[in-house]
Amino acid sequence: MATKGTQTRDRIVERAAQVFSERGFFGSSMTDLLAATGLKKGGLYNHFESKEQLALASFDYAVGLVEARYTEALRGKTGAVERLLAIAGVIRSLVDDPALRGGCPILNTAIEADDTMPVLRTRACAAMTGWQRLIGSTVKNGVRTGELREGTDPYAVATVVTATLEGAVFLSKLYGDPAHMHRAVDHVSDYVRGLAT
Amino acid sequence: MATKGTQTRDRIVERAAQVFSERGFFGSSMTDLLAATGLKKGGLYNHFESKEQLALASFDYAVGLVEARYTEALRGKTGAVERLLAIAGVIRSLVDDPALRGGCPILNTAIEADDTMPVLRTRACAAMTGWQRLIGSTVKNGVRTGELREGTDPYAVATVVTATLEGAVFLSKLYGDPAHMHRAVDHVSDYVRGLAT
Repeated sequence: MATKGTQTRDRIVERAAQVFSERGFFGSSMTDLLAATGLKKGGLYNHFESKEQLALASFDYAVGLVEARYTEALRGKTGAVERLLAIAGVIRSLVDDPALRGGCPILNTAIEADDTMPVLRTRACAAMTGWQRLIGSTVKNGVRTGELREGTDPYAVATVVTATLEGAVFLSKLYGDPAHMHRAVDHVSDYVRGLAT
Repeated sequence: MATKGTQTRDRIVERAAQVFSERGFFGSSMTDLLAATGLKKGGLYNHFESKEQLALASFDYAVGLVEARYTEALRGKTGAVERLLAIAGVIRSLVDDPALRGGCPILNTAIEADDTMPVLRTRACAAMTGWQRLIGSTVKNGVRTGELREGTDPYAVATVVTATLEGAVFLSKLYGDPAHMHRAVDHVSDYVRGLAT
């Protein structure tokens, strides 16, 4: 059973994650974070030694929400094409029914952190690499079983799928219009089906 | 001839644009901006009434650098496929030889500004719309002349091309590896050639 301290910590992270997701690391002031968590400064520092520590925990929480969607969507799916289509479907679902308001945690964190906060940048990199490996290993398996064409490059597929979908998250958010995501998922789906033998 | 005031203003914008490009709006402190421009606070405020005004001018300057690359790359090109390939080529060139260090100004600005700074967000939106219209009108012309297949959707092509290339700018920057951009441009080039009759 979770202790009271752990429950408080979890609640802080859950609420802070929503603030960071919408306002970014630099855009989230201590005032914003205290208002969202309902704590005083001392109470927050009992659980996290710095804003950066809280941002790291919030990032892990946000990525965990998306990973849970993947686990659910991939359950029972073994074919390479159906798995790749399910991955695209998860990202589509995040635009229509977001895990957190504010866009993709990897994209948001990486754009802000890349030149300024190496620790957050490393975390964003690891999350993206996890996603690319999921796609790459699915492609490798598909080639081995003969479902996908011989010579299909797992790295190229991972780049194309993640780049197109991240770009579409960005466009849909910028315009407040899910049409960009829908068009991008249609394109990725055609592309994935085109890899089949 | 540019007056001394205009020259100073231009030099401020040029240097501030580099700071904003790498550190973002919130990540760029007045100290950073003063150090980069070599001015005292009062000197900066002679030319820009706020950090936001300076950020807007810097954004326009950064977008202008990219637009100049497009003008150059599209000169003398009239075919739809060659124009779309040239557009992809410009984005590829920005990874290998950036106009400013720090990634795509539209992507960086939009990600940071979308939930927090409506004026910058509007500016990023307008720049993206300009890019999408360039692609969309190229596709419309190509369909009209019979170079591209009847029924090719200009909106879908604009979304797929901009999403894939923006996503690739992001991935290449995140990993410090231009391979992501090269793979994405190869994919976009195949896609564009596939639209031809």
